[in-house]
Amino acid sequence: MSDSDNNLDVIRHSAAHVMAHAVQNLFPGVKIAIGPPIEDGFYYDFDKPEPFTPDDLERIEEEMAKIKAADTPFVRREVTRAEAEKTFGDQPYKLELIREIPEEVSTVYEEDGFVDWCRGPHVESTGKIGAFKLLSIAGAYWRGDERNPMLQRIYATAWPTEEDLAAYLKRLEEAERRDHRRLGKELDLFSFHEEAGPGLVFWHPKGALIRKIIEDYWRDEHLKGGYELVQTPHIARQDLWAMSGHLDFFSENMYSPMEVEGSPYLIKPMNCPFHLLIYKNTVRSYRELPIRWAELGTVYRYERSGVLHGLIRVRGFTQDDAHIICRPDQLDSEIVRVLDFVIKILSRFGFNEYAVYLSTRPEKYVGTYEGWEKATDALRAALEAKGLAYEVDEGGGAFYGPKIDVKIKDAIGREHQCSTIQVDFNEPERFDITYIAEDGKAHRPIMIHRALLGSLERFFGILIEHYAGAFPLWLAPVQVVLLPIADRHHEYAESVAGELRSKGLRVTVDTRNEKTGFKIREAQVQKIPYMLIVGDREVEQKTVSVRSRNRGDLGAQSLGEFIAYLGAELGGDLKTAD
Amino acid sequence: MSDSDNNLDVIRHSAAHVMAHAVQNLFPGVKIAIGPPIEDGFYYDFDKPEPFTPDDLERIEEEMAKIKAADTPFVRREVTRAEAEKTFGDQPYKLELIREIPEEVSTVYEEDGFVDWCRGPHVESTGKIGAFKLLSIAGAYWRGDERNPMLQRIYATAWPTEEDLAAYLKRLEEAERRDHRRLGKELDLFSFHEEAGPGLVFWHPKGALIRKIIEDYWRDEHLKGGYELVQTPHIARQDLWAMSGHLDFFSENMYSPMEVEGSPYLIKPMNCPFHLLIYKNTVRSYRELPIRWAELGTVYRYERSGVLHGLIRVRGFTQDDAHIICRPDQLDSEIVRVLDFVIKILSRFGFNEYAVYLSTRPEKYVGTYEGWEKATDALRAALEAKGLAYEVDEGGGAFYGPKIDVKIKDAIGREHQCSTIQVDFNEPERFDITYIAEDGKAHRPIMIHRALLGSLERFFGILIEHYAGAFPLWLAPVQVVLLPIADRHHEYAESVAGELRSKGLRVTVDTRNEKTGFKIREAQVQKIPYMLIVGDREVEQKTVSVRSRNRGDLGAQSLGEFIAYLGAELGGDLKTAD
Repeated sequence: MSDSDNNLDVIRHSAAHVMAHAVQNLFPGVKIAIGPPIEDGFYYDFDKPEPFTPDDLERIEEEMAKIKAADTPFVRREVTRAEAEKTFGDQPYKLELIREIPEEVSTVYEEDGFVDWCRGPHVESTGKIGAFKLLSIAGAYWRGDERNPMLQRIYATAWPTEEDLAAYLKRLEEAERRDHRRLGKELDLFSFHEEAGPGLVFWHPKGALIRKIIEDYWRDEHLKGGYELVQTPHIARQDLWAMSGHLDFFSENMYSPMEVEGSPYLIKPMNCPFHLLIYKNTVRSYRELPIRWAELGTVYRYERSGVLHGLIRVRGFTQDDAHIICRPDQLDSEIVRVLDFVIKILSRFGFNEYAVYLSTRPEKYVGTYEGWEKATDALRAALEAKGLAYEVDEGGGAFYGPKIDVKIKDAIGREHQCSTIQVDFNEPERFDITYIAEDGKAHRPIMIHRALLGSLERFFGILIEHYAGAFPLWLAPVQVVLLPIADRHHEYAESVAGELRSKGLRVTVDTRNEKTGFKIREAQVQKIPYMLIVGDREVEQKTVSVRSRNRGDLGAQSLGEFIAYLGAELGGDLKTAD
Repeated sequence: MSDSDNNLDVIRHSAAHVMAHAVQNLFPGVKIAIGPPIEDGFYYDFDKPEPFTPDDLERIEEEMAKIKAADTPFVRREVTRAEAEKTFGDQPYKLELIREIPEEVSTVYEEDGFVDWCRGPHVESTGKIGAFKLLSIAGAYWRGDERNPMLQRIYATAWPTEEDLAAYLKRLEEAERRDHRRLGKELDLFSFHEEAGPGLVFWHPKGALIRKIIEDYWRDEHLKGGYELVQTPHIARQDLWAMSGHLDFFSENMYSPMEVEGSPYLIKPMNCPFHLLIYKNTVRSYRELPIRWAELGTVYRYERSGVLHGLIRVRGFTQDDAHIICRPDQLDSEIVRVLDFVIKILSRFGFNEYAVYLSTRPEKYVGTYEGWEKATDALRAALEAKGLAYEVDEGGGAFYGPKIDVKIKDAIGREHQCSTIQVDFNEPERFDITYIAEDGKAHRPIMIHRALLGSLERFFGILIEHYAGAFPLWLAPVQVVLLPIADRHHEYAESVAGELRSKGLRVTVDTRNEKTGFKIREAQVQKIPYMLIVGDREVEQKTVSVRSRNRGDLGAQSLGEFIAYLGAELGGDLKTAD
């Protein structure tokens, strides 16, 4: 973390105290929970019987301004557990935390009579909390657990200067305009349902169609790229997860077992053990390697309901997973090949800027020192061969092997972790997989886990925000909408639609009895790439009047011209549409 | 059940007694379990420490022949529970069953000193058990439950005459040649793994590729046919299954709950509740109907391990599911449309003969009498409009609605249940789904569940047997294999392969250092539709020597000719390849 990050955190954490102070002033008796700094701001959780209103937020902001103006010093004090318990005797959330920590001595910070239990550090005095703004109220379970009481969380932001704040609010506005949760509703792409459980995605027809287009592209590229597809179950006996080691090192992310005929079964959090069972199904020769097996495998992982976020953080998601099992002499070329593939696929979706990280051997590791060196060298060499700038996270690898992580930069500069290339020295040992080499003996192959998009759900969320819902033509669920001006133009509109559909285009006809202007506005809200307006003139001249989502009126074209135009757009390189 | 079925059952059940008698004669002390007639034969389960050998089967058959020759009468006798318990005092499996039945008086049948506890009826005397043959030995858990002891099951068959037996054995040989479990291994299509659990399918690359082709075809036809795709999670809170009623009437087929953050969740046995949640996501207008939502949804259902059978009966399978939600005035046309679709899709896979069943209102039902009449009429009218012969199963509908079931006839005349079209009056009520009609009021729509293939796993098993593994060109995982005669022909072979691949064909090159005859035999075993042999002459003349899997040598062709030839085959109607 950089100094400036540290500085921001101190400002925001101090502003959080001031917010809690202001709330206590205005709403005596409210219980306070926690108020940490977060990315781009801070929040505080309150237990208050009535919901905060937007008016309340304004009043709290004013009260905070007064506390800031008073410029009272933050005073740090060490307290024993008994003292802390006494100080926060009427604050049950604080008490719960105080009673849990192992240390007998902790610290509190006080300004102008308001005391919070806190490690600090803080700014010198309330005058130094910078420029702040309260943003929103949300429900949040205490400690992110849906069995606990629901608290009210006030989100806010704070920055060193008013200019910083203004710039951030502008970025925020842009991010909100692109928020995939809002666009998901507006464009009818997906939903979540409390009846089924949080974090489980329901893909609506338009969303599922985009997913199909992504999956078709993904599968075809994998088949062309020397991969084979496999498909495996979603559940397996608990014993398999003991064998793979996931019960030891991944069980916190796994659900409890279900019973099938007396045996415990677990829903899968990963696909790899299944691919290894297929590998072990027969004796493998060195001639068969490298094996590259890809699966769009849906996995389920435990996440606290408090951390779930739209499509970005969910409980069920489909990994675009593949496992490469190769001989040691094939490792270098396989990694280069994967890295090429990563860039090819990400570019197709309009992501051309990356932040790349190489994570190396941690203190505790499995496999040999030489194996790690060789694998790390292979990863590094591939990055250098591709001319990719990267940061080294020394010792940041998993215990089972070194890895490359690729974060993509979206249209407004935010980074998102997507692709990963991980060498694994652990599972080949645990599953005792081998191949028969030219020497007639059994040797241990190397295994690479890799994902390009990461999770289809998360990637779709990123994609929606990247394009602000205006998907490029090849991904748009509806590519063209016909807008007949009057009933007498319906027949011609349907025949044009039929012609376009026969070219594989996704076309709808808006035959509703509405004004054309209204239909255009709706198509624009739906971010349909092309609107074709047809009236008397178009019917007579056998043309269509083309309107682009981005570029407005493009004038009349013959159907042949328009089809050629779309063909060129679909064949060319993709750009962010918006 | 017809009289002749009854007659066969009596013969077979009597032969089962004689088999148990013979086993007891030869292996005193063996415990006997149950010996029912089954389709095409019978079995008996024995508890014997050492496994039966093939020699044992011969000896048992000889011993049965002796008992048959003695022609001793079967004598029926009523016994009290106490008498039965005494008679079978040393037969723990019989005792377990005797103690479970509610009746105080049961029957035993005796011939030549061998007594079995049995309801009968039996043939008059052992001489009348017909022509029989012992077929195989398999492990079977007592009562099909893997927590119980593993018994030895001897499978056998019996027929009225020697000619019937011979004809059956010929059919059996043909069925064994086509057995999808054997072909699945030989063609490397799929596997099961005890480590993961029985009844869970692992699709290997070639099997998964065929599945992809089937799925691509299925999705594209659905989109063309006015369906939309949706995609839903594999798990949901238990509450949802209470709401849908599955906990009440389907819980025997469901696994026990897993816990997620304190709530019980169940893995889905059906997709319908999820589609209904999407429907309820917004207010629906009469203009939106009919809604047709299709999903390749993987479901998990409990089946006893004893009844699992290859791909045909599994625990995890992907339904090619769709739900149509329509207005009452749309029901007739929607059912005709589905039935057309059923026939179109099944024909594409080479199934052109069907046995169709219409199941009508049972005594207990939900919904109105008029609703049932109307729906049943709609189903009947659709069948008649299509000119499909059908049988009516009076009162055979589920409590929630009438249905059409379509069984397909495979290449050797066996029937397999695949397609189903079910009207459902229950779930729309339970989920309280409505649409706003032209009158501005909320009305209840009608829901149709339908599947065309049934389960992808099961359908794939049937398909393998239908084609005896020789998939038609459009489904073959490898369509063409290049067989270069010597190393110097590799380059040309690869260039031909590249050319064919660019046309979208699936092509491999066998560059192994083996004799051409050997490579042809292997390609034949792999049932690859076309083998292209290339040697000096082909390189020189720019041709390929074409060999068909079915028709042998087709002579030399230019590459252009061969591509045109394949194009015609792929475009034309499909026939059973074998």
